[in-house]
Amino acid sequence: MKSGFFKSEVKEFPEPSIRRLPIYRHYLKQVKKQGTEFTSATQIAHNLDLLPVQVRKDLKITGIEGKPKIGYEVSPLLLAIEKFLGWNEMSQAVLAGVGHLGSAILGYHGFKEYGLNISAAFDNDFSKIGKLIRATPVFSTDSLEKYIREHKIEIGIVTVPAQSAQNIADIMVDAGIKAVWNFAPEKITSSNENVIIQHENLASSFAALSKKINENKKDKA
Amino acid sequence: MKSGFFKSEVKEFPEPSIRRLPIYRHYLKQVKKQGTEFTSATQIAHNLDLLPVQVRKDLKITGIEGKPKIGYEVSPLLLAIEKFLGWNEMSQAVLAGVGHLGSAILGYHGFKEYGLNISAAFDNDFSKIGKLIRATPVFSTDSLEKYIREHKIEIGIVTVPAQSAQNIADIMVDAGIKAVWNFAPEKITSSNENVIIQHENLASSFAALSKKINENKKDKA
Repeated sequence: MKSGFFKSEVKEFPEPSIRRLPIYRHYLKQVKKQGTEFTSATQIAHNLDLLPVQVRKDLKITGIEGKPKIGYEVSPLLLAIEKFLGWNEMSQAVLAGVGHLGSAILGYHGFKEYGLNISAAFDNDFSKIGKLIRATPVFSTDSLEKYIREHKIEIGIVTVPAQSAQNIADIMVDAGIKAVWNFAPEKITSSNENVIIQHENLASSFAALSKKINENKKDKA
Repeated sequence: MKSGFFKSEVKEFPEPSIRRLPIYRHYLKQVKKQGTEFTSATQIAHNLDLLPVQVRKDLKITGIEGKPKIGYEVSPLLLAIEKFLGWNEMSQAVLAGVGHLGSAILGYHGFKEYGLNISAAFDNDFSKIGKLIRATPVFSTDSLEKYIREHKIEIGIVTVPAQSAQNIADIMVDAGIKAVWNFAPEKITSSNENVIIQHENLASSFAALSKKINENKKDKA
């Protein structure tokens, strides 16, 4: 099993740096649109509320370094970030569980821009099967395994209730999926070592936020 | 402005360790339910797919260390985690934007268990105002500022569309909120240095996942 939190995470590059790359990309796309050809670590840092030394370190993982007095050339840096993340090629995904969270993810603008194409969604609810939700066709969960095999789907997004998450993940893994992106509030595991499991955990995010609020209170006490 | 990604994050404790605490807590609550009084870093590590050295380091931030041959006493460790995160006291929150994502968050079981009480939700949609959605009353966004002031709300959860996010955050900050938890796909800033801004960024999570998939492909190439 692989996951951002656990043993076998990508060791070569620091995950916080990887997680910041989309933020740099978003910023660089904005300045490119304004016709800017060059930018500096200091400018980027100022705009994104980071330290310049952090910006240089983060961007270096893509293989690009700024040049003294010139800084970064915007377009090649953008390409390097996208290539590093694999966002220059489209990843095919499916989503299981078209409740509120599933619908929110299907409607999330920008996934296509990141190279993620959610081609189909799956649910057990007959009132949803056969319909388009957020422009994505919804099929019966019974056909999930077959669809993954036939369409060589790489990523399975799990937005079913906690008690069904492991079962849906097992179906995805058996069908040959490469990665499971789990939004259900339950840890899931994979019988196949090569399958990546990534958990989105609201409790973890809230822990980070709670701690900051607590520290702020202490500062003022 | 404060945020997990940026300059002024909590320096005293590593954020990855903080983010793992809810996972330890979840596990410890399970073993406690089974009547277990003591556990070890090795057992915890085995069950959560972590290294024992990492478990010891993470738990140490709460002030608790395991004893040789005995390990950790489950109940005091649970209490220490909750106290460290401030989850032993209830935080009052409101949510703005009752679309799919907002509804999913209102329906997320477990927030109360983490000490987060979302007492009201706000929206501009007349078909939602005055109703209960996921057992939470929905009011007009016009009354957001007054509600925050009168109920001394600490946390504002932003699930409005990207183009409205900054405006809603400004209202919350003006009303005296302590932290903004932003789920909108747009960076927001605060004019008040003491307000914590935490972004939930699906693009960042997808970047981490994409990179792992890319690495896996390379390993097999």
